[in-house]
Amino acid sequence: MKITLKDGSFKEYDQAMAAIDIAKDISEGLARVACVAEVDGNVVDLRTIIDKDCTLNILTFDSEEGKKAYRHTCAHVLAQAVKNLYPDAKLTIGPAIDNGYYYDFDMESLDRAALDAIEKEMKKIIKKGDKLERFELSKEEAIELMTKRDEPYKVEMIKEHPDTDTLTFYQQGDFIEFCAGPHLMSTKTIKAFKLTSSSGAYWRGDEKNKMLTRIYGTAFNKKADLDAYLEHLEEIKKRDHNKLGREMELFTTVDVIGQGLPLIMPKGVKIIQKMQRWIEDLEDNEWGYVRTKTPLMAKSDLYKISDHWGHYKDGMFILGEDDEDENGNSVSGKDIFALRPMTCPFQYYVYKASQKSYRDLPYRMGETSTLFRNEDSGEMHGLTRVRQFTISEGHLICMPEQIDEEFKNCVKLAKYCLETLGLEEDVTYRMSKWDPESPDKYLGGAEEWDRVEGAMREILDEIGLEYTEEAGEAAFYGPKLDIQAKNVYGKEDTMITIQLDMFLAERFDMYYIDQNGDKKRPYIIHRTSIGCYERTLAWLIEKYAGKFPTWLCPEQVRVLPISEKYAEYGQKVLDELKKNGIDATMDNRSEKIGYKIREARLDKLPYMLVVGAKEEEEGKVSVRSRFAGDEGQKALSVFINDICEEIRTKRIRPIEVTEEENTKKK
Amino acid sequence: MKITLKDGSFKEYDQAMAAIDIAKDISEGLARVACVAEVDGNVVDLRTIIDKDCTLNILTFDSEEGKKAYRHTCAHVLAQAVKNLYPDAKLTIGPAIDNGYYYDFDMESLDRAALDAIEKEMKKIIKKGDKLERFELSKEEAIELMTKRDEPYKVEMIKEHPDTDTLTFYQQGDFIEFCAGPHLMSTKTIKAFKLTSSSGAYWRGDEKNKMLTRIYGTAFNKKADLDAYLEHLEEIKKRDHNKLGREMELFTTVDVIGQGLPLIMPKGVKIIQKMQRWIEDLEDNEWGYVRTKTPLMAKSDLYKISDHWGHYKDGMFILGEDDEDENGNSVSGKDIFALRPMTCPFQYYVYKASQKSYRDLPYRMGETSTLFRNEDSGEMHGLTRVRQFTISEGHLICMPEQIDEEFKNCVKLAKYCLETLGLEEDVTYRMSKWDPESPDKYLGGAEEWDRVEGAMREILDEIGLEYTEEAGEAAFYGPKLDIQAKNVYGKEDTMITIQLDMFLAERFDMYYIDQNGDKKRPYIIHRTSIGCYERTLAWLIEKYAGKFPTWLCPEQVRVLPISEKYAEYGQKVLDELKKNGIDATMDNRSEKIGYKIREARLDKLPYMLVVGAKEEEEGKVSVRSRFAGDEGQKALSVFINDICEEIRTKRIRPIEVTEEENTKKK
Repeated sequence: MKITLKDGSFKEYDQAMAAIDIAKDISEGLARVACVAEVDGNVVDLRTIIDKDCTLNILTFDSEEGKKAYRHTCAHVLAQAVKNLYPDAKLTIGPAIDNGYYYDFDMESLDRAALDAIEKEMKKIIKKGDKLERFELSKEEAIELMTKRDEPYKVEMIKEHPDTDTLTFYQQGDFIEFCAGPHLMSTKTIKAFKLTSSSGAYWRGDEKNKMLTRIYGTAFNKKADLDAYLEHLEEIKKRDHNKLGREMELFTTVDVIGQGLPLIMPKGVKIIQKMQRWIEDLEDNEWGYVRTKTPLMAKSDLYKISDHWGHYKDGMFILGEDDEDENGNSVSGKDIFALRPMTCPFQYYVYKASQKSYRDLPYRMGETSTLFRNEDSGEMHGLTRVRQFTISEGHLICMPEQIDEEFKNCVKLAKYCLETLGLEEDVTYRMSKWDPESPDKYLGGAEEWDRVEGAMREILDEIGLEYTEEAGEAAFYGPKLDIQAKNVYGKEDTMITIQLDMFLAERFDMYYIDQNGDKKRPYIIHRTSIGCYERTLAWLIEKYAGKFPTWLCPEQVRVLPISEKYAEYGQKVLDELKKNGIDATMDNRSEKIGYKIREARLDKLPYMLVVGAKEEEEGKVSVRSRFAGDEGQKALSVFINDICEEIRTKRIRPIEVTEEENTKKK
Repeated sequence: MKITLKDGSFKEYDQAMAAIDIAKDISEGLARVACVAEVDGNVVDLRTIIDKDCTLNILTFDSEEGKKAYRHTCAHVLAQAVKNLYPDAKLTIGPAIDNGYYYDFDMESLDRAALDAIEKEMKKIIKKGDKLERFELSKEEAIELMTKRDEPYKVEMIKEHPDTDTLTFYQQGDFIEFCAGPHLMSTKTIKAFKLTSSSGAYWRGDEKNKMLTRIYGTAFNKKADLDAYLEHLEEIKKRDHNKLGREMELFTTVDVIGQGLPLIMPKGVKIIQKMQRWIEDLEDNEWGYVRTKTPLMAKSDLYKISDHWGHYKDGMFILGEDDEDENGNSVSGKDIFALRPMTCPFQYYVYKASQKSYRDLPYRMGETSTLFRNEDSGEMHGLTRVRQFTISEGHLICMPEQIDEEFKNCVKLAKYCLETLGLEEDVTYRMSKWDPESPDKYLGGAEEWDRVEGAMREILDEIGLEYTEEAGEAAFYGPKLDIQAKNVYGKEDTMITIQLDMFLAERFDMYYIDQNGDKKRPYIIHRTSIGCYERTLAWLIEKYAGKFPTWLCPEQVRVLPISEKYAEYGQKVLDELKKNGIDATMDNRSEKIGYKIREARLDKLPYMLVVGAKEEEEGKVSVRSRFAGDEGQKALSVFINDICEEIRTKRIRPIEVTEEENTKKK
């Protein structure tokens, strides 16, 4: 047989051989670091026997698939260690994930000491270096094996397979796991690993099921890489908005109020207020929007027209009685109200309030809109997974021939907002399409979806946007352009979305009078410019580690008199700053100036103005910034001009000195 | 017997006499216009027999009590006319009210033609001029009479009286009414009346009861006064925010969304946005507030601490399951959420998020806060009776010794806001106290209420505020200063409220560390500066008949090119206006300039800038305003400076020309 290698060269063998043996034949060194093999494009075990012509690529830890097998094998080692220490723990699943792996056990919850003990046991297993053996069983045999070993979750999973399936198992020492692989040849290959944390997780992610204990870990092929990763993990934990945002008193949560209902604290409100006013004025004054303020709840009648009642009811908060008869009317005869999960139908009625003609279109409506989603408590997280949020919402009612330009302008506006906030390079674009396999989840049929998705694709290509396509992520009424960003832990969320809707105008009987006096159906674009303010705030916290661009800072300048003698001049400076619309305060306490500076730095202030005898005499201020450290003395009016320009233009000043340099200087 | 008259003179009679006969003895003229008599301070029928010494005052239509009897008698005439025309109509009640009277019948609903026919019948009755006779019956006889006459509502009302009561009836012709009086002597006395409208009303105001047909009417003793009143009614109808606000496209309502849930339209949003930003900046930058943004819902746990669950649950919207066990916990084990009817407990947790010391107090929190009240559909009205509204909410956490100054400052701020909006002279002040008869409706007991009400009275007296006192209008946690205003129809509403609270800090375990390092309980002031934005908008619409102060106008300037030739210069003018933050538009249509001016005037715009050849040549604009009519030509920069100052200072320009003059000039 003839084996074509990655570099285009060939190997010929006259008998079937395991992939690992071919690797050894290529180079012993390669075999030592090999993780899995890619045969004719399929990723397989190194123990796979190759018996015919193929292309072969030996994958190491440096490849995605190699990393996956490496870490998945480490998850098996973790499971073996847990079973050694907790024989009653029940196995469930344990996949490789971005940056590591996890395993869910049905067992008691674990603290750090317990994780340390498990790590120790894992090291023993790795040192012993058992080979992983792969074997296959019929479904019947598989059930028998796992029943004998008292692994009910494994039995449950096996039972879901067709009776005719052959099922794969991996064994190392006396540890046997029902698993499709692929895996490393031996536990010995694992060079460096760490269990990073433990938490609860529902069996199959369903809160109706039992809560399991999940252990997260990671593994690398070099100790140095593991250390670097762990250090990076510490670093990003510091940026985690759910930690830093609370420390900086930007928001908090309260048990008796509820999860997913953050209280935005005064400093957080300042930031959101600045963003909100900016977006409202930008949309209304520069992009031709009119602004609405529509109610946060409506009768079920409204949601029945939009069909949210049919497609989205589970995600909505329903008010009061909800017993419905067979026609969907309340049994008590009272109105059923629900909090709104979106603004669309409310803004449609603003459009419909008077008859519109082609002269009025495109009719662009914006709203700073609060929405509610009835999500599970388990899903709640900081400012990003919440039950109530406020979004820069909007709907554009267009004639068909306006869709192209208007959609492009929505993308342009969103990009401008991202750019202004310094976030543009952190996003990716995704076209979210319907799922042709589940047509009942959507309005309309294949033909209409193909047409409108085609139209969107054309627009995106014209803009020259780089984007991926994903099925099953569309809204029930049309495809979306989703602008995605990752949080510090690498979890991706949709920050901004722009949607094309060809169905709802019909359902709400929206129309316009065209040039010939005929009634015509408009198209609708659903869009946001900067997304949800809470989520954007979370993003900014993580992006800037709390050191926001000056214009967004809740406190932009702090005046620091060197001693009480200069409090009066300090007050004069403060008044002047405030008169110019700058968010400024004064630290008047009788503390040492060094202490005040240190505290202002910990508060992540962009500017401190130190004032003493010399400054008072000359009408000056000594400027210290987190951008350039000591900026020397400036006339107060010069400083005010500079910072006002920085605020007005929303400039993001680059950091010119390191934290260390900044601390040392002075 | 000796009768002392109003003017201090005496009349002596040696036999008992009816009040009407004494009136005749004083003057035949007086007897003709007499309505009722006041005997020793009690208002009674003129047919009352006077048989001992007393002071006597004969009251005419010019007195409140006279008007009341006059109009109440007219309501009897109305009821007689309805029974003549609709024999199956059932009588209920028909009192005199401000400016008129009404009567509720159990009958079909009525259109204007039906009201006209009833008026005609009433005129016949008045012309016939039957005397009203008063007679008394025992409860048993009364029931028998009204059962015979098939008046079930009257029977129901009679049955509620104690068995020993003697009940009063009035009869004119064959019409008999169960009624306490007093009444005129004859229907002939009624000189001028009008039925103004008809609507539905629940029996006893309870929506569980049958819907009755209410007929509103009024009556005067001079035709000219009736005409003037009806004209005034037409005039104020034009100002009615629920009519004018819709016509001006400031808001609308939608059946499928629900009553009491207005949609604020783009022009209305502009006004509210301007007020909101003004109030937020005013409070934060000039009155020392910090701003919060807290969730619109919470678990029932929170409301149980505040005791809103005990005192206010019926007024709240509850989300989802509400089945509670005997401990008030949800049976399903799921959280019970409710929409908030107020912001208090949410802001308390912002205060509680970190420990506060005497240095941090007073801690003043403001929030632009949306609230929800679960009110009956029947109660809903325009922007004033709604289920959801947004208020300039705030809570001040104070040391006891700060209460005085802080409360005064809250009053000062509210007065400043009213003054700025030109509303200060339209309000009255009311101190709302607890009801000692229903102590279970309130937290705490008599001693605490007396103390805190005393404290509030002292503060109000120090300010020199003129105020009334009303029992039973307090919040359940403390007394209120309510700032009251009337709508165009004379109905009074609370626009602003400032409250003293001595209970909730205890319930929420709020404290501060005093100078000695001890934990102390703060006091809380609940307050608003300008009240609910929706209600304030309604008030402004009625106050200014839609002609808002310039700074609040959604459209402040419209540029009107004389012809298409000057569109380019018009655009230049428009751009310059917008660059200066003025809400300006241009009317570019190829319509005659007179037509454009007329339309701009109907849109109630403060300024129009007419531009043509002369203006373009000289860089000028021809200014027309609704304040002064034609203001002549001005350099564009001069106009911009003027209007920017008017907007910045929130000046309310007085109207210098009448509508007519303004229309004539040109």
